[in-house]
Amino acid sequence: MDVNAERSVFYISDGTAITAEVLGHAVLSQFPVATQSVTLPFVENVQRAQAVKAQINALYQHSGVRPLVFISVISPEIREIILQSDGFCQDIVQSLVAPLQQELGVDPAPVANRTHGLTANNLGKYDARIAAIDYTLAHDDGISLRGLEDAQVILLGVSRCGKTPTSLYLAMQFGIRAANYPFIADDMDNLKLPPALKPFQNKLFGLTIDPERLAAIRQERAENTRYASMRQCRLEVGEVEALFRTHQIRYLNSTNYSVEEIATKILDIMGLTRRMY
Amino acid sequence: MDVNAERSVFYISDGTAITAEVLGHAVLSQFPVATQSVTLPFVENVQRAQAVKAQINALYQHSGVRPLVFISVISPEIREIILQSDGFCQDIVQSLVAPLQQELGVDPAPVANRTHGLTANNLGKYDARIAAIDYTLAHDDGISLRGLEDAQVILLGVSRCGKTPTSLYLAMQFGIRAANYPFIADDMDNLKLPPALKPFQNKLFGLTIDPERLAAIRQERAENTRYASMRQCRLEVGEVEALFRTHQIRYLNSTNYSVEEIATKILDIMGLTRRMY
Repeated sequence: MDVNAERSVFYISDGTAITAEVLGHAVLSQFPVATQSVTLPFVENVQRAQAVKAQINALYQHSGVRPLVFISVISPEIREIILQSDGFCQDIVQSLVAPLQQELGVDPAPVANRTHGLTANNLGKYDARIAAIDYTLAHDDGISLRGLEDAQVILLGVSRCGKTPTSLYLAMQFGIRAANYPFIADDMDNLKLPPALKPFQNKLFGLTIDPERLAAIRQERAENTRYASMRQCRLEVGEVEALFRTHQIRYLNSTNYSVEEIATKILDIMGLTRRMY
Repeated sequence: MDVNAERSVFYISDGTAITAEVLGHAVLSQFPVATQSVTLPFVENVQRAQAVKAQINALYQHSGVRPLVFISVISPEIREIILQSDGFCQDIVQSLVAPLQQELGVDPAPVANRTHGLTANNLGKYDARIAAIDYTLAHDDGISLRGLEDAQVILLGVSRCGKTPTSLYLAMQFGIRAANYPFIADDMDNLKLPPALKPFQNKLFGLTIDPERLAAIRQERAENTRYASMRQCRLEVGEVEALFRTHQIRYLNSTNYSVEEIATKILDIMGLTRRMY
């Protein structure tokens, strides 16, 4: 077999496998290696664990290359079965439990893999997160300017600069109530900060974007329109950036950043605390 | 100082710190210990790293208890500074790099901490993710029944059973185009599968919820209404579950699950591939 082929990667968990994916992906992104991954969540009983082990072993047999296996499994019984497979196994959570046990002087008390779970202990916090998502949807794209006093951040920017995905990510990942307000083409003749936003100056945060990237994004949706033209994109971005500067609204250019990066930069700049789920 | 007080935890990164948070949170959730956490992302230069080190040391001096420090830092220079702090440091990404380096027979080639970053290599994939979010918003709550042929999953259920947060999580985290359709009170007299959904039988997935939890959620929004009454909630849930069974629509009860768990269970049951960002 060709050892230069894509390397197989397994993410295995008795929970959602999100933790295994996030860490495995972070580590693998440090290597110039092509990978092909399979995620196997909710491996919760011996039978399924043995089937997973057989799947890993069969792939190794077939390819001649050891699959990489990132494990986040709380059940010792399940973990042991996977660790006995022929894969190159990295037990990402367990490898940190032993040193922490010593440092904390407390034994771990795992009940089940509910890292991303819903329990009586976190139900209130969970409801607040869902409320943040509801709030953000109700205040997307300037739909409602009522209740802005409850926003933790109000994002401003031109159409398609990333306001909506960023707002939703802030709500979903961090429980932040994020409103957003679009400046549209008709505003550009005489761009002003809407009176409804003025009382919330300290919650405003601007997003901007390179006109070239903006035009490319708009072309995808509305080819050969004024809306998607370079001229219009340059005009809108220029006007909106001038407005941000005039009103001393903090802003960042989203062009080269993912929603994760934009959202965490906003929290950092505004000094907002992240909730964790 | 009281050693039984909440233990301080730092999540430190030269990127978003999301990886450090996810893994640190997963590990700490195994211990019956109260924690208080601070996330410090984008620690990208020596000056900021030294300030972070001073912050950790000052907290230790003040409390007499070593802060726990989860690090996801790619820059060796920055990492070294943090590791020299008085905190109990766990370098979560780096600890996996050495074994993988040996297994892969390839040196790591980190450029910067862009685990959640946007690069020329992943721009197409990123655009597809944003398109999935757009799609999901445009097909939330039955807003549009056009274009359902492009959905990868269509969630069905009563109002407030978790359709919208689950759809958005599927889009945001996994790049899945998820539509959702609500059954409302007026449908209940003669509940039928809407004709517009019938061609997409194999994409349908039902969510149900315990009537008690549903009533509690609805009471938060519309206290003392018929909509939020136990009687109405029981009726709707009963009718909708019967519909799922009649049409052999796969479904799950969302009552005790988080959006992460619901979303990953749906992908697992439907055999949908996760994208990773």
